[in-house]
Amino acid sequence: MPDDFERMWSDLAPIGRSTESGGYFRQPFTGAERELDAWFREQATARGLRVETDEIGNVVAWWDAGSGAGVLTGSHLDSVLDGGAYDGPLGVVSALAAVDELRQRGFVPARPIGVSVFVEEEGSRFGLACLGSRLATGAVSWDVARELRDRDGRAFADVVAGGASTLLDGVGTFVELHVEQGRDLVDRGAAVGVASEIWPHGRYRFDFTGEANHAGATRMEDRADPMLAYATTALAADEQARLAGQRATFGRLEVAPNGTNAVPSRVTGWLDARCSSDDALAELVAEVTRHGTERASRDGTALSVTPESVSGAVAFSSDLAAAIAADHGDRDWPIIPTAAGHDAGILSAAGVPTAMLFVRNPTGVSHSPAESATVPDCHAGVTALADTLERLAG
Amino acid sequence: MPDDFERMWSDLAPIGRSTESGGYFRQPFTGAERELDAWFREQATARGLRVETDEIGNVVAWWDAGSGAGVLTGSHLDSVLDGGAYDGPLGVVSALAAVDELRQRGFVPARPIGVSVFVEEEGSRFGLACLGSRLATGAVSWDVARELRDRDGRAFADVVAGGASTLLDGVGTFVELHVEQGRDLVDRGAAVGVASEIWPHGRYRFDFTGEANHAGATRMEDRADPMLAYATTALAADEQARLAGQRATFGRLEVAPNGTNAVPSRVTGWLDARCSSDDALAELVAEVTRHGTERASRDGTALSVTPESVSGAVAFSSDLAAAIAADHGDRDWPIIPTAAGHDAGILSAAGVPTAMLFVRNPTGVSHSPAESATVPDCHAGVTALADTLERLAG
Repeated sequence: MPDDFERMWSDLAPIGRSTESGGYFRQPFTGAERELDAWFREQATARGLRVETDEIGNVVAWWDAGSGAGVLTGSHLDSVLDGGAYDGPLGVVSALAAVDELRQRGFVPARPIGVSVFVEEEGSRFGLACLGSRLATGAVSWDVARELRDRDGRAFADVVAGGASTLLDGVGTFVELHVEQGRDLVDRGAAVGVASEIWPHGRYRFDFTGEANHAGATRMEDRADPMLAYATTALAADEQARLAGQRATFGRLEVAPNGTNAVPSRVTGWLDARCSSDDALAELVAEVTRHGTERASRDGTALSVTPESVSGAVAFSSDLAAAIAADHGDRDWPIIPTAAGHDAGILSAAGVPTAMLFVRNPTGVSHSPAESATVPDCHAGVTALADTLERLAG
Repeated sequence: MPDDFERMWSDLAPIGRSTESGGYFRQPFTGAERELDAWFREQATARGLRVETDEIGNVVAWWDAGSGAGVLTGSHLDSVLDGGAYDGPLGVVSALAAVDELRQRGFVPARPIGVSVFVEEEGSRFGLACLGSRLATGAVSWDVARELRDRDGRAFADVVAGGASTLLDGVGTFVELHVEQGRDLVDRGAAVGVASEIWPHGRYRFDFTGEANHAGATRMEDRADPMLAYATTALAADEQARLAGQRATFGRLEVAPNGTNAVPSRVTGWLDARCSSDDALAELVAEVTRHGTERASRDGTALSVTPESVSGAVAFSSDLAAAIAADHGDRDWPIIPTAAGHDAGILSAAGVPTAMLFVRNPTGVSHSPAESATVPDCHAGVTALADTLERLAG
């Protein structure tokens, strides 16, 4: 098994990697990500798995065995811009390696086992995270999704055929293995953990509008510069999140006209906010908006806030988590919450009993070239996933 | 003459205009700006002017007459991104119209009169304002300019042949007519004014660096988010400029990786600062830098500041300004300072006796689609320029 994992991992390593930063650029439906998709289908076929796809770009490779509702495991292959190697691919490669491991153990499944890849998990191209799983579960309709546009104005309907998906029809349980995006497992000294819940999460577009003008000739008192309310809002988001023990980030910005010697006419910033409860999320966004609006009205500029995607809290099945985590030799696996969104959250919200496994990340850093996991921890993850599948499909 | 002016003005109106914003996109050495260049050469040739060019893209159209050092007048045809119609083209069109006017008056020049167009005045493509006039005067060498790159990484040497320019060899005086980029002439109730000086002006690149990370999963206390020091710096620049009666703007930003769910690894902002003296400029930039550095060190991020272009104060010849402004019927033209940089500043700094005429701008707004001048004021500008050329070349 270790050989299989490492061979697959080294297959993927060069694809979409920036030689400059060492980070990955695997945007949905672009060259690098399509190469990964083709690689996955090849791997599935080589293992005798039956490949099913839908018109969205999601793929499931089935190990047809036994009867009844299947156990699905997998993750995604797309990355954020300049992301890490592990977020997504680790779950897919580990799922294939776990199938190999189960076969080497001589395990005979009592029900089908599927390996899944959902498209556009990061939302880094069409702006809606978990787009593939949202469509597959019906959480978002094709009529809404088709109009989503990337930064170049290209519609989602221009890159996929689209339509209803029946890919999840035979699925009874879903398990996603993922690199941890924080330091909880480092602090607990554990290679593997199980998820308890995903915090509520929202993305909000903050449009600050003012009046373009000459940066040199326009007196300060004659300006309506939207950059100032943006800057105030970004600082308020950070401060409010710290005070409340929540998370808030402005990581994406667009400025118009974005010229050195022009007072901007418009600054658009995207707030990513995650909180321990739905109420806390609503309160945080309201407080940040209040700070921005106050400053804008002082400057003669304006702020409008548009929620682009808001996901409520997801509590994974506690029975399932407990069953997966218990009785592993000398210790149970720790059960920990996460503030990162995942396809697992979408499937869980759609009523599919769902669990997540996390693999320890020594840096705690994610969405960055510094994201990592040690080889022994990756092997521990594969074994943990194989054990879990054996429990669920046995 | 009014007919000529209006015909030329309507020739130019559609070129590079965004139907969405009404603003102009006339970036140096792109389609729209090259169309304006071709139009200018046609107009010059149709008037029997002798067209001279250099390997930088600068053009002078000579009315060969009399003898001795020539009187040059003109401006530029490029625009900032989404700029106004008047900044640049008004000076070129008015220069051609003034030549027509002088011929209609039967004026016989005692020395040559040239109409000039300098390239890349705004610095909106290669980052260095007045690039064409800096090269023509030797203020910047070709060896430095050739390496300047646009946002797509294209070098200046890739778009022009380059080399030394002798275009200004026969020039004794330069006059630039320009739309006013402020409200001074509105307040004074005058259609036309003469420049006394240009404030010192600098562009500084502020690179804020931190660590990319997952916007959801990373605890606030584990972050090194460079956006926060940027926001602090942008607010400090505005506040310091207001307190000191100077000008400071962050109008251009680049964020990496610029993803909604990623804490940025880098935020680069460009400070445009203009002050009434060189000392005030240095003090303002130092104070803004101090605020940014303090915040960065609190956040575990870093700030480095690189001056990209700094121009000292330019005092135009006061004798020349007084001679141009005096004795116009019932009143002299007002003599006013400006905080906007111009090719006239570069020629003046190079030792060419130089003057500027401003035409009133009712909105005071510039570098924006709202930039304007009334038709009667434009005609007053052409007459003023013709009068000035008659004084200087008579």
